Amino acid sequence: MPRFSAFFVVGIFIYGDDMQAVSFKNRILTYIDQRFLPAKVVIRECRTIQHGYNAIKELRVRGAPLLGIFACYTVCAGFNSFPKEKKRFLSHLSNAIGYLKSARPTAVNLAWALDRLYAAALSVEQKSIEEIKKVCIDESIAIHEEDNLLCKRIAENGARLIPDNSRILTHCNTGFLATGGGGTALGVIYKAHADNKNIMVYIDETRPLLQGARLTAWELTQRNVKSCLITDNMAGLLMKDKTIDLVIVGADRIALNGDTANKTGTYGLSVLAHYHRIPFYVAAPFSTFDPELVTGEEIPIEERNPDEVKKVLLKLPVAPLQVNAYNPAFDVTPGELITAFITDRGIFKPPYNFLKNKIG
Amino acid sequence: MPRFSAFFVVGIFIYGDDMQAVSFKNRILTYIDQRFLPAKVVIRECRTIQHGYNAIKELRVRGAPLLGIFACYTVCAGFNSFPKEKKRFLSHLSNAIGYLKSARPTAVNLAWALDRLYAAALSVEQKSIEEIKKVCIDESIAIHEEDNLLCKRIAENGARLIPDNSRILTHCNTGFLATGGGGTALGVIYKAHADNKNIMVYIDETRPLLQGARLTAWELTQRNVKSCLITDNMAGLLMKDKTIDLVIVGADRIALNGDTANKTGTYGLSVLAHYHRIPFYVAAPFSTFDPELVTGEEIPIEERNPDEVKKVLLKLPVAPLQVNAYNPAFDVTPGELITAFITDRGIFKPPYNFLKNKIG
Repeated sequence: MPRFSAFFVVGIFIYGDDMQAVSFKNRILTYIDQRFLPAKVVIRECRTIQHGYNAIKELRVRGAPLLGIFACYTVCAGFNSFPKEKKRFLSHLSNAIGYLKSARPTAVNLAWALDRLYAAALSVEQKSIEEIKKVCIDESIAIHEEDNLLCKRIAENGARLIPDNSRILTHCNTGFLATGGGGTALGVIYKAHADNKNIMVYIDETRPLLQGARLTAWELTQRNVKSCLITDNMAGLLMKDKTIDLVIVGADRIALNGDTANKTGTYGLSVLAHYHRIPFYVAAPFSTFDPELVTGEEIPIEERNPDEVKKVLLKLPVAPLQVNAYNPAFDVTPGELITAFITDRGIFKPPYNFLKNKIG
Repeated sequence: MPRFSAFFVVGIFIYGDDMQAVSFKNRILTYIDQRFLPAKVVIRECRTIQHGYNAIKELRVRGAPLLGIFACYTVCAGFNSFPKEKKRFLSHLSNAIGYLKSARPTAVNLAWALDRLYAAALSVEQKSIEEIKKVCIDESIAIHEEDNLLCKRIAENGARLIPDNSRILTHCNTGFLATGGGGTALGVIYKAHADNKNIMVYIDETRPLLQGARLTAWELTQRNVKSCLITDNMAGLLMKDKTIDLVIVGADRIALNGDTANKTGTYGLSVLAHYHRIPFYVAAPFSTFDPELVTGEEIPIEERNPDEVKKVLLKLPVAPLQVNAYNPAFDVTPGELITAFITDRGIFKPPYNFLKNKIG
């Protein structure tokens, strides 16, 4: 994959059934800069830890499962500028991993994948730097390939819950732009579509960063899935009018009692679905469950720049400059409002007690 | 009031306690073109029925009570181009009123005020055209002055429901930019603020047209009321975190059983407030009750251009061009989710049966 920084860089790599949000080939890491979607498909190369950190922080790359994959590849792509002496190499590796983890505190997959990469490196710390690098690269590719497989399993498990002619509401983006495969919640939707279930997808635009409008709407039009974009505040109206049969969303971190951190607005949707007796599903790889977290109250919630609220896409001002704004990137949906978790290890229904039975 | 079409036209007329969204002096109608707020205070003159229709249709002027006032003034401002023969004058008047009513089908005040204007004209149809014009002008000014008084009464009645240190969530814009006085829901807020109740106001940005971010945030900063802007999908999170003590919104039309049409997103808020056991108040002049409507199911819901969803403020595209979007301007909140109606005639609590007891 050559290096691109110009716009409109579109190749076989992007279109087709194997569309990928990141690519790591011949030790070169490229990614779609998602800030420019849907207007432009901009592909960038990442060569340094700092570049990768910025890409994560600025949401050029986002989506809980994808963040872990991209962060591991960032480490591998950054090896060229690591020290050549092994002790300093390992110390640099440790620092790089800590730094990348700090870019987004809520998504557990980021820390999970980087911890796994570090453990793999330490398992061969007696070997040469080149061999450690190779182990890291292999581990990163393995994490990526596993995520692709997890997506397939989630899709297969979840599609069983989607009746023919379902009208499905989803929030944020959980597709191939958010994972190392076909997606989590959107993966289920793609599978139902591939199974000719004649589904219709309502897309929450997902303010403030509009991942639904920009990314999910783009993915669904690419894949020819019938869809309709709405503002987040229309979900209640659609449920009341019986236009929505089920809700399916992704997750950034899940506690052992089922409490689920996901994009802001998810909690409100779960309450609306509960009130209207509509199934509310969370689709996520099992690695999203955090074995350290007993309840969702302990999940750190990233608070982002208020300007994301006051200026749409940091471009169009829509509020007085002097007004205060609040911008939590996530909220926590209590387990009791979740009808079922759709995971690669199967479907889990309440009561949720992942501590006792499921983790480990 | 001189005629302005340039930007940054700011006068005593706008700032101060008697800020007004429309002004009718010496038979000249001027209004703040609200599309440019908060960036610019643009004042325009309206001289024709067509100009007034466009101003209403394009939401340069909006807010249920203000629409009625502005439409009546539009008729008066348009008299210069009316026929000089009386029968044709009256026919032209009737057509103009019908045309202006059609600009926004949901708000009842628009039709209510125009019907009242027409009735006033017919009551003197034997008199000269000049006298009919004068009666129309007097009636329009009376409707405006009455609305100002209604706002004061609503504010006084409502403020009794606002405890000290309340944290209040509001939606859309219901202040001096939406009424002929100090506002309905925002009027209550201004009164509580004037009474030194140390309130804090959370403002739903109110997609798609962002009346909360653009107009309410602007009004509250003008009046130095403590406030914080949020995206619509954060309301649930704030209620869960016990950051909201009560919700107060306006109304565009109310049926006799209490079902209330208001800006899209109101219904979802009412469900969230119900779930979190937070009071949900609707503040509106009594003329918002439609004596013809037994339930909210009969309220016509205006569906607007989907581009308002796909392009923020019709300027910034945020979704693929080919995606479908849905854009209902209002939703209907069932009376049973409304804790109380705050009106100029007092506070009404459930059960609501305005048919039997209150109207007429």
